[in-house]
Amino acid sequence: MVMSPVVNTYPLSSYTFGTKEPKMEKDTSVADRLARMKLNYMKEGMRTSVEAILLVQEHNHPHILLLQIGNTFCKLPGGRLKPGENEIEGLKRKLTSKLGANSPALVPDWQIGECVAIWWRPNFETIMYPYCPPHITKPKECKKLFLVHLSEKEYFAVPKNLKLLAVPLFELYDNVQRYGPVISTIPQQLSRFQFNMITA
Amino acid sequence: MVMSPVVNTYPLSSYTFGTKEPKMEKDTSVADRLARMKLNYMKEGMRTSVEAILLVQEHNHPHILLLQIGNTFCKLPGGRLKPGENEIEGLKRKLTSKLGANSPALVPDWQIGECVAIWWRPNFETIMYPYCPPHITKPKECKKLFLVHLSEKEYFAVPKNLKLLAVPLFELYDNVQRYGPVISTIPQQLSRFQFNMITA
Repeated sequence: MVMSPVVNTYPLSSYTFGTKEPKMEKDTSVADRLARMKLNYMKEGMRTSVEAILLVQEHNHPHILLLQIGNTFCKLPGGRLKPGENEIEGLKRKLTSKLGANSPALVPDWQIGECVAIWWRPNFETIMYPYCPPHITKPKECKKLFLVHLSEKEYFAVPKNLKLLAVPLFELYDNVQRYGPVISTIPQQLSRFQFNMITA
Repeated sequence: MVMSPVVNTYPLSSYTFGTKEPKMEKDTSVADRLARMKLNYMKEGMRTSVEAILLVQEHNHPHILLLQIGNTFCKLPGGRLKPGENEIEGLKRKLTSKLGANSPALVPDWQIGECVAIWWRPNFETIMYPYCPPHITKPKECKKLFLVHLSEKEYFAVPKNLKLLAVPLFELYDNVQRYGPVISTIPQQLSRFQFNMITA
């Protein structure tokens, strides 16, 4: 038999959550965001962004940690790499900025694991695809999703303007309306893994 | 940088297609199929099925080989394992049965690669999920999808009652109406691979 890669998944209750200063979004509208993207593209070329799938378990079912902004919009923790920045180091930097405590000793030792999906933005528009569409020679963004393996105990410091939610896979699945095309198909991308549910 | 696994993809035109005797479906209706599934479950326990993602390229875009039955229904080549059968050997057996020539010398040397998705059927119903839903302790089927690495030249013998289609990823993506939930999210599952498009 082909063995699936095993991911240890600890109970949500084994993690501790605090707060820290707000991390404001850089843009106040989608139009602003796309305009800033265009400006950055002209200066630096294709944007590369990296996002983390942080897994916990409740009732023996995997849950993903999402940052909620306002009342509805959810995103994975992560962000844009600096030009030339290493993906792994860049994702660690972003995770510490989004979820790490101000005291370095309390910041998790982020274990960046498997790349599970790569999405492409062909134009300065919101739509992205899980492939670079034919005839697109200069995509505007490449976004990579990585599994991040959490230890049994961690402390997360959540910016005061955001909420950190643990969302079960069954809630994400087939729910593109609520979570968008990238997050709603994470269950499919994780299906090849075997979750080793560790109880407290 | 994290390197994506590379998959060599050859032009559709480098493959040869012939025909062979029809392979009739075992069931003539969904109700028959579910009834047979139930009967087999009582005899043999959970059904395990294995399916193959066979990739080719056209216009530098990956295409997947699908078997079309009648005018609309498409499926991946594969099928049910015998009780205790090894997944890899079982998938090779099914691929040879579905797409191999009658002459053994012409049958491809199937190179079974990465498991890219696992789907679960909780009940004797058509719906499947990319996780085993909570509280389901006895799923009725586990279906695994594998990448199969094709060589530069192969001969496929297609049963006369079926059509073999090369469907581009951009046609599958976001097209659950036409291809169903399993096949329509193959683009997301393949997005982490880097396709090395080999031209003739």
